Amino acid sequence: MPSDEGGVFLEEKCITVALYTTMDKKEVYLDYAATTPMDPRVREAMAPFLDEKYGNPSSIHRKGREAREALDHARETVAGIFHAQPDEIVFTGGGTEAINLALFGAGRQHKPSGQHIVTTKIEHHAVLHACDALEKEGCEATYLRVDAEGRISHDAIAAALRPDTVLVSVMYANNEIGTVEPIAEIAKELRTYRQQRESQSGASAPSPKRLWRVGDNPKPPFFFVDACQAAGALTLNVAELGVDMMVINGSKIYGPKGVGCLYVRRGIKLQPLIYGGGQEKGLRSGTENVAGIVGFATALEIAERERVSESTRLTALRDGFIAVVLQRIPNAVLNGHATERLPNNINISIPGLEGEVAVLYLDARSVYCSTGSACSATSLEPSHVIAALGRPRQYADGSLRFTLGRGTTKDDLDYVLEALVDIVGKLRRSQ
Amino acid sequence: MPSDEGGVFLEEKCITVALYTTMDKKEVYLDYAATTPMDPRVREAMAPFLDEKYGNPSSIHRKGREAREALDHARETVAGIFHAQPDEIVFTGGGTEAINLALFGAGRQHKPSGQHIVTTKIEHHAVLHACDALEKEGCEATYLRVDAEGRISHDAIAAALRPDTVLVSVMYANNEIGTVEPIAEIAKELRTYRQQRESQSGASAPSPKRLWRVGDNPKPPFFFVDACQAAGALTLNVAELGVDMMVINGSKIYGPKGVGCLYVRRGIKLQPLIYGGGQEKGLRSGTENVAGIVGFATALEIAERERVSESTRLTALRDGFIAVVLQRIPNAVLNGHATERLPNNINISIPGLEGEVAVLYLDARSVYCSTGSACSATSLEPSHVIAALGRPRQYADGSLRFTLGRGTTKDDLDYVLEALVDIVGKLRRSQ
Repeated sequence: MPSDEGGVFLEEKCITVALYTTMDKKEVYLDYAATTPMDPRVREAMAPFLDEKYGNPSSIHRKGREAREALDHARETVAGIFHAQPDEIVFTGGGTEAINLALFGAGRQHKPSGQHIVTTKIEHHAVLHACDALEKEGCEATYLRVDAEGRISHDAIAAALRPDTVLVSVMYANNEIGTVEPIAEIAKELRTYRQQRESQSGASAPSPKRLWRVGDNPKPPFFFVDACQAAGALTLNVAELGVDMMVINGSKIYGPKGVGCLYVRRGIKLQPLIYGGGQEKGLRSGTENVAGIVGFATALEIAERERVSESTRLTALRDGFIAVVLQRIPNAVLNGHATERLPNNINISIPGLEGEVAVLYLDARSVYCSTGSACSATSLEPSHVIAALGRPRQYADGSLRFTLGRGTTKDDLDYVLEALVDIVGKLRRSQ
Repeated sequence: MPSDEGGVFLEEKCITVALYTTMDKKEVYLDYAATTPMDPRVREAMAPFLDEKYGNPSSIHRKGREAREALDHARETVAGIFHAQPDEIVFTGGGTEAINLALFGAGRQHKPSGQHIVTTKIEHHAVLHACDALEKEGCEATYLRVDAEGRISHDAIAAALRPDTVLVSVMYANNEIGTVEPIAEIAKELRTYRQQRESQSGASAPSPKRLWRVGDNPKPPFFFVDACQAAGALTLNVAELGVDMMVINGSKIYGPKGVGCLYVRRGIKLQPLIYGGGQEKGLRSGTENVAGIVGFATALEIAERERVSESTRLTALRDGFIAVVLQRIPNAVLNGHATERLPNNINISIPGLEGEVAVLYLDARSVYCSTGSACSATSLEPSHVIAALGRPRQYADGSLRFTLGRGTTKDDLDYVLEALVDIVGKLRRSQ
């Protein structure tokens, strides 16, 4: 159309286009690892506690007792899913807080006898920065390397253990690249190590095949697992896994933000982070967030019930998406392990592509994904996880994470694939 | 009616009575200091963030940005009410956490130069137990006495200051007895002390009348105020009060549980309690509880708007209730100050009466109150606050706290008065 037809017409055209774009807009949220929408069933479970059931669980009158009962019930639900006892569950104000409670709690409490911590280079910043802070308090931390797929070997853990190791902290599944770590194998190594140490010190050694049981008096090194990304995808059975402490949180399992929990095996003493009225067995003082905790337990219950079927569905979607990306985008690589991987995680690196730019281009098409973890999305540092895989920096700069969830369909992914291929083509041509 | 008419009829009669009791039951909640019901306007403000606005504020895409905007707006609202800057507001997972962040944050950060803390014997357990823990880390705490009405004198504070005092922690209003402390006077003492110290050390002394301003580089001793009970009743203008750090929380202002905030004057460095993704300027890592924070800010906005009118209304109700209690219950005494008192607080001691028994009798009549703070309601220790007033133990054992709120009417209080007089009479006769 010739330009001399004037501004008015062009303006109308613009409006038409804008309206069309809005009406046609397909929103695809693929950032479930950053946070999940709340399940309507969770919202419903929370509703009475945001309304008429407002009592403080520490009050002895009826209003308090009804809140206390809800809290007890939530604790039993979580304990049941963990195959743990209710008194082994500590509710906190989120996953990060729970992780800090585990690390500082064990690190500070057991300092006289042990001050060495073993962890990996690809942990969440909650673990890494807490370890930094513990090092300033006199602890020593060993940060183990992972292989090119992001896996830590149980042998490497075993080799790092020292007589003064108080804690081993390994994430269940990585939040950026989705790699699942061999938790049960690491637990076995730790068990063997503890048994050897006990028998060397003359104590009666239990049978090597014996699992940890309630009533054991656990001794360091304790095994702590950050399972925030694993909840809803992998088993949370602490007896089977053989872990001593484990954290999950609400905002990753279609529950509320600001709630998490720490499983602490009976007999492990922790120093609290927060002192006060003595709630949560003195480990997390402060009036309990009853609505949040009820929502959290409900979310976990649903996530556990739908875990197997949903994981199967997402694994198929994930693998289909990965196959097409690798086929249609030259030089694209998958970060993380091909199979030992969270069912909902897709993390690809496209060399020469600035990840953040791609995220914004996709955002303009109402596709919501991320470069790495949301927790570091506002920082310009390249991903410490991708860097730990041993890839050159350009891979970290060009990494894109798509994380799927309950709302994700094949149709959504087809839409995203077309948009992605188109954007990558445009960005590469413009270079 | 003769008993030979049989069991069936008696059963019917029982059912009739039970139904009648249920239908006629008047529920009177007088434990607003333990926790408040959520204001429906708060619930409404939170709703979108428990639903479609679920993004992680750290995500750079639209879903993240809309959450970030809500967070920024909430921070501005709170800062506005405090007469502070948005970057001086740190959101936390509750009041107790915020109190711990202030105390440990300042205590640990400034340890090289100062390790002495001044506080009072009647602080909340969050303060007292955090100070205990800090003492184990090498700090030293001075716990000042209060007078028979629970007031701390600013002279006593001034006398307790030492060159190594890092922090003065005084609650704005006591959670059990409602006594309001002379915060602005204490702040003035601290200002004078700091100025004298600065002029002694040769630094140019600012005018003695000058208030603290943004941009000052505050030096210890810092003045920390736990204002959890004061919010909604007293001014929260930090510039006017002259405080350096201040805490309030959601569950006391008709907002959500599990959210609080710490005001930290610009320039004061604190060591975090919780490390991770660096949220809240690195002082409180962890995905922000967006719905909770939005609810908290809305609740504070409403509380501030209705503060003066509601305080006037409650003060009249409070004084009417106290007058009748003192007149009709022999030997009953009021705990706390008669006028320098929270508008909603009634705390009485009835010697010879077991407070807990009275709470349960009142509970049976659907009147919900407490013996002391809900936070220690499940413990059998007598109140440390009543004990600090210098009264004999029988007064602590017989203390009853009624705290009024937005839902409280004259009619409710008349009902409670009758029930209370009746119960006290019965319990005294049975002794």
